[in-house]
Amino acid sequence: MNFWLINSILGRVIMLQGLFMLLPCIIGIFYGERNDALAYLFLSVLCLVVGKLARIRKPKSATFYAKDGFLAVSLSWIIMSLIGALPFVLNGDIPNYTDALFEIISGFTTTGSSILNNVELLSHANLFWRSFSHWIGGMGVLVFILAILPMSGGSTINLMKAESPGPSVGKLVPKMQQTAFLLYAIYFAMTIVEIILLLIGDMPLFDALCHAFGTAGTGGFGIKADSIAGYSVYLQGVITVFMFLFGVNFTFYYYILIHKVKDAFQIEEVRWYFLIYIAAVFLITGTLVRHGDGLFESFHHTAFQVASIMTTTGYATVDFDKWPEFCRTIMVGLMFIGACAGSTGGGIKVSRIMIYLKQVKKELMQQIHPRQIRVIKMDGKAIEHTTVRSCNVFLMSYLVIYAISILLISLDGFDFTTNFTAVTATLNNIGPGLNMVGPNGNFAEFSVFSKYVLIFDMLAGRLEIIPMMILFHPGTWKKS
Amino acid sequence: MNFWLINSILGRVIMLQGLFMLLPCIIGIFYGERNDALAYLFLSVLCLVVGKLARIRKPKSATFYAKDGFLAVSLSWIIMSLIGALPFVLNGDIPNYTDALFEIISGFTTTGSSILNNVELLSHANLFWRSFSHWIGGMGVLVFILAILPMSGGSTINLMKAESPGPSVGKLVPKMQQTAFLLYAIYFAMTIVEIILLLIGDMPLFDALCHAFGTAGTGGFGIKADSIAGYSVYLQGVITVFMFLFGVNFTFYYYILIHKVKDAFQIEEVRWYFLIYIAAVFLITGTLVRHGDGLFESFHHTAFQVASIMTTTGYATVDFDKWPEFCRTIMVGLMFIGACAGSTGGGIKVSRIMIYLKQVKKELMQQIHPRQIRVIKMDGKAIEHTTVRSCNVFLMSYLVIYAISILLISLDGFDFTTNFTAVTATLNNIGPGLNMVGPNGNFAEFSVFSKYVLIFDMLAGRLEIIPMMILFHPGTWKKS
Repeated sequence: MNFWLINSILGRVIMLQGLFMLLPCIIGIFYGERNDALAYLFLSVLCLVVGKLARIRKPKSATFYAKDGFLAVSLSWIIMSLIGALPFVLNGDIPNYTDALFEIISGFTTTGSSILNNVELLSHANLFWRSFSHWIGGMGVLVFILAILPMSGGSTINLMKAESPGPSVGKLVPKMQQTAFLLYAIYFAMTIVEIILLLIGDMPLFDALCHAFGTAGTGGFGIKADSIAGYSVYLQGVITVFMFLFGVNFTFYYYILIHKVKDAFQIEEVRWYFLIYIAAVFLITGTLVRHGDGLFESFHHTAFQVASIMTTTGYATVDFDKWPEFCRTIMVGLMFIGACAGSTGGGIKVSRIMIYLKQVKKELMQQIHPRQIRVIKMDGKAIEHTTVRSCNVFLMSYLVIYAISILLISLDGFDFTTNFTAVTATLNNIGPGLNMVGPNGNFAEFSVFSKYVLIFDMLAGRLEIIPMMILFHPGTWKKS
Repeated sequence: MNFWLINSILGRVIMLQGLFMLLPCIIGIFYGERNDALAYLFLSVLCLVVGKLARIRKPKSATFYAKDGFLAVSLSWIIMSLIGALPFVLNGDIPNYTDALFEIISGFTTTGSSILNNVELLSHANLFWRSFSHWIGGMGVLVFILAILPMSGGSTINLMKAESPGPSVGKLVPKMQQTAFLLYAIYFAMTIVEIILLLIGDMPLFDALCHAFGTAGTGGFGIKADSIAGYSVYLQGVITVFMFLFGVNFTFYYYILIHKVKDAFQIEEVRWYFLIYIAAVFLITGTLVRHGDGLFESFHHTAFQVASIMTTTGYATVDFDKWPEFCRTIMVGLMFIGACAGSTGGGIKVSRIMIYLKQVKKELMQQIHPRQIRVIKMDGKAIEHTTVRSCNVFLMSYLVIYAISILLISLDGFDFTTNFTAVTATLNNIGPGLNMVGPNGNFAEFSVFSKYVLIFDMLAGRLEIIPMMILFHPGTWKKS
């Protein structure tokens, strides 16, 4: 293990967080929240100093294996969260550290599950930090570092691999650092466009910033008790469109940028993503209309809610927990599918689902026509065996973590639907589930133990399991 | 496709069913149930004639591919069920044909889910037929035919493959027919021993027969409204032990028969099966005791219920739906794991779960020590790649059928836990679920459409999905 290189990366992450914390500090000053501003300033300086100190000892070698990449990423996220939770405790908005940790991890992992009964009691600085954590976590903090700082070859690819969602690394251009830069450029530009469109709809600047961050990272923390329900139809529409857009594989936007519009729409995953979205909106709207709701209203809310859940954002304009069971079940199904790989969304990812279905199809065809030789293709190219294997291993470890998590939180004695959807909502980084943790509920009632289980799930979900499993595997820490 | 060979196999299945139907006919005569006896006699003769007629045209070739095996098995089971449901309708105990079909498929697939509000209203002949269907379905009707009749090479192995549960065919001896014979011999002997032990405990002969069939096939149809709750602690104990034993891989008994007792206990799957059972009993008993129940009573009921659910039998002595949520969740987990491959139990099977976990472990170790080469082993031998692949494909198709089934039955509007566990209970061939379909509930309330969805799930579960998917795949029926 390249301990000192990992240490140096962690130092960078801490310093970067110090810089990020200056933003809520400024917000605090602007809104006259003196204590909050001071807390963020203090932590910011502390981070910069500690990060700098950690980086004094330079790594001897630049050798950086996949294992080191997984470790650097999982440790970065944990340290970032441990520090990121402190402001809430320091300024007293969330006095309990476990709750604060749950909240900020929910932020960084773009989950959006909350332990707060009423978000409107938070200071502006804290609301901003909460939403901004979505933006940082959405595209990834290490990808950010890669985008702005030069790094040696081995570490670049292994860090990208470990932090980016999806079965394989989406290389837009041959150089990893340029890819990281391009991703963040697209991400930044789209966020700006959303902010402008929200401002045009008369949303206050502060609200526009927070909601754009929540949408871009597909996070879902709101700043109002009723999430997005209180805003105009136009504003809800803008957010619907952007939630959907941030769930698209970013390769799509890259193709559009380089004027390959036709190629962009040829991406198989994107086509499936569109199709699933349209099918779900159609089925749910139909069911709601059949139950007597108005067509436009049903369509509007369904388009919003489906985009919110499928991209694992978690904003709400209505309480879908009160929808007919058929619609609720579709929503639970969408929670699992999730968004595209290479987007900021969570879940299993459309491309993985496709790889699973293609394997089933291949096996069936092989039984029916035993003499034909078949390969699994995506976008016209054969998928590498290692990709298929890692997809399969992902599914199995996902199910194992799933089952164990439900079992552990069932010790609290809440009902099965609550437990089942609480794990679904956190492991897939969505936010709300059904029953107690439905769109109008929250995670406050769970025991401290259960909260740590769900914290693990959120991190495992965002980092796609393997980094967290490597971190906790005894073999990782044994001297070979 | 070898149409005429499949046709000839189907003919045999129908004739065999004709013979089987003579048994409830005799029971009907014995209990003076004249109409029932006549109905079974009539159907028996009809089956013998139709089966004979179907076999007039001899197959030209003995070539028999895997596809033909899958088709022969899935069609056999469907035809057997379509006919097997008729007695219930003819003698008026279950006037609705869909309900009768649901009930008999639940029997043959050893599920044990019922649409009856009160089983005690059935005639003795029908109760016997219901329980006997478990016994036929448990080890498989085609395996039975293989055991007693000579068949050509290709068809033997492909039929065994398609009908026997587990990731690979458990060949006890090199010859398939001898294996089939041995399996049935062990099955028969163990059933007899259970009947004797039940009779020693003063259970009436009729009850002993029905319960032994239900235990042997890990089916779960009872003949009393309160399932097994009304019998003595001794009788419940005997059934506990035999449910557990019928969930063990039959290779275990074969090794014991040939005096390789040590080897028998070395079978990895069997060891895991024991371990999971003990762990579950320990955890649930502990929880119940902590909730104030007596130690012996808790242990006794837990040992029964865990054996019942893990082997996917489905008998009940208490209503585990009323247990604390932690225990309920363990039970749901056991529903998925299921029993050993090569037993009469259902579920995903312990050996498949092991193969999944071993794949995860291998992948993790490969990331941690990239230079080591690893293979997945079971019982000290490397597992073939095709076995791993078919296990993975099983999991994926299982999950797809799972998700679609839950969605389809959610149209009825029952709660999520009911829908989720109804599919769990049928696809894993268990019987009871939670809430509306809990041990004291039944499946009567579901719509006709949902019943057919669940019928498909029961068949897909028993035949381990692939045969049913081949049957419904358009490619199977296209001329190549």
